[in-house]
Amino acid sequence: MSKHPVLIVGSVAFDDLEMPSGTFENVVGGAATYAAVAASLFTSVRVVGVVGEDFPQGVLSDLRSRGIDTAGIEQAEGKTFRWRGRYAHDLSSRTTLDTQLNVFADFRPRIPPAFRDTPYVLLGNIHPALQLEVLSQIERPKLVVADTMNFWISGESKLLGELLRSIDLLVINDEEARELSGIHNLVKAAADIRARGPKHLIIKRGEFGALHFDDQGVFFAPGYPLEDVLDPTGAGDSFAGGLMGYLAAVGSLEHPAMRRAIYFGSALGSFCVEGIGPKRLFEVSRTDLKTRMDQFMNLVETGGPVAFAVP
Amino acid sequence: MSKHPVLIVGSVAFDDLEMPSGTFENVVGGAATYAAVAASLFTSVRVVGVVGEDFPQGVLSDLRSRGIDTAGIEQAEGKTFRWRGRYAHDLSSRTTLDTQLNVFADFRPRIPPAFRDTPYVLLGNIHPALQLEVLSQIERPKLVVADTMNFWISGESKLLGELLRSIDLLVINDEEARELSGIHNLVKAAADIRARGPKHLIIKRGEFGALHFDDQGVFFAPGYPLEDVLDPTGAGDSFAGGLMGYLAAVGSLEHPAMRRAIYFGSALGSFCVEGIGPKRLFEVSRTDLKTRMDQFMNLVETGGPVAFAVP
Repeated sequence: MSKHPVLIVGSVAFDDLEMPSGTFENVVGGAATYAAVAASLFTSVRVVGVVGEDFPQGVLSDLRSRGIDTAGIEQAEGKTFRWRGRYAHDLSSRTTLDTQLNVFADFRPRIPPAFRDTPYVLLGNIHPALQLEVLSQIERPKLVVADTMNFWISGESKLLGELLRSIDLLVINDEEARELSGIHNLVKAAADIRARGPKHLIIKRGEFGALHFDDQGVFFAPGYPLEDVLDPTGAGDSFAGGLMGYLAAVGSLEHPAMRRAIYFGSALGSFCVEGIGPKRLFEVSRTDLKTRMDQFMNLVETGGPVAFAVP
Repeated sequence: MSKHPVLIVGSVAFDDLEMPSGTFENVVGGAATYAAVAASLFTSVRVVGVVGEDFPQGVLSDLRSRGIDTAGIEQAEGKTFRWRGRYAHDLSSRTTLDTQLNVFADFRPRIPPAFRDTPYVLLGNIHPALQLEVLSQIERPKLVVADTMNFWISGESKLLGELLRSIDLLVINDEEARELSGIHNLVKAAADIRARGPKHLIIKRGEFGALHFDDQGVFFAPGYPLEDVLDPTGAGDSFAGGLMGYLAAVGSLEHPAMRRAIYFGSALGSFCVEGIGPKRLFEVSRTDLKTRMDQFMNLVETGGPVAFAVP
């Protein structure tokens, strides 16, 4: 069985990270970077994005050496997108100190002809108009997954509504689900959001895990409990990339593949937060992943539903 | 196989609850009440506590009709312990408005002779000196589980230390685990707390589920996602009572019994929050419990660890 490739569209960036453990500048980041590295553990990956003249060629070759096709990463005149943020002492929240869109301000995703038949498409958190523009360039994808954020939920609700009708799976966090639906209770919020289009919805809750909603009900996977969390940046994107990579590798969207994909996504998110920026994620091998999945499964192993008779 | 009985020592109270949905006064509550009702779905229960002259006899007969032996609930001169609290709009936090200890101020738990050989003992959140006093009256219990709270962690650390050396399982929430250990990271906090005595530690995280730590590692069970949460009062006590009831019914402390007990506890907590006070919990049948457990298991079913190969 040949594995299906994944197309990822999103930001490639420099992050300046003010962490409790110190300040780290010019850290390579961006949603597409994290997602692509995570997905590349499972299958071949194609990335569409934009960088400036200041972006190191070495990083692009690193990506290529992992089976990530960077032909869709345009190099534009000017500087790479840059985000500066400060994390709270316990890493539970962060504040954006500065956002310099730079070359990202004029980004219009152009899907290379060789990428247009990619069956698994992950639309990172960019303007919904651009996400729709990507979809118009893709030929009958098998699965379209999208991320979005509060900024577009409040500012571009009409376009976002159009996007929701065009995707199969929306991956957002709990605050975004509440803002998008206007409903606090997540079970009710999920029903509201799914009625707007996506058959599947995943609500991420960071260290508290993720909920998946579809016609078959609710599924929950926990976050992997870690002793040393260094930097949550990119964890959600690593989750989405790992999920997508797994689904593409096994070629299914149904249970139990979807459930396993969520665990794999969660495992990739857990690796991501163990290093500053994508450092740890870049180091993870398939053997590391297997070991963590074994531990993860032990964390939740109950002996199966059959044994759960009321004594 | 005859099921083992459970002994529960703790508060029996009136609660005045200022909820977003309205104010409810004179609601029967107290940790021992919630825990006993939850445990009574699994096995026979013995309660030790104190009520005032104002406590309705009808409630005590309701408890007895469920197989709860109330011979250890002393009726003292004066009024029953009363707590008044106000919940935030989204029920995520609460403020104590008033605490009237009343007859609870002079409570000295006296274990009736017929209760002294109870193998499964749940020490509700009372003064650690009283928890120790209970243990001194019990003959070689098989499992001692205790709850505690920030008030005793900061004010009675020496006695609490003694208690920790005398119990098998401590059940506390995440804030309490952080305060008790002085460590923010829960995995590290758990190691610190277990080094002080209890072989097992459960950290409750409310709707986010519960973590169990022992020599075999970490186990996680989620909260059951609900559409309608009315009142979180007593959910933690229902969890502890359900856990204890299950363990006593199956007569084991080992995996997978412990893991299943945590799911059963979590299911009981989920019923509890669906009604004001213990109303819903009182209504739950073993059939309701079985149905919820089936749904709960479907929520987390992955097809087993064996299928989690890296594709």
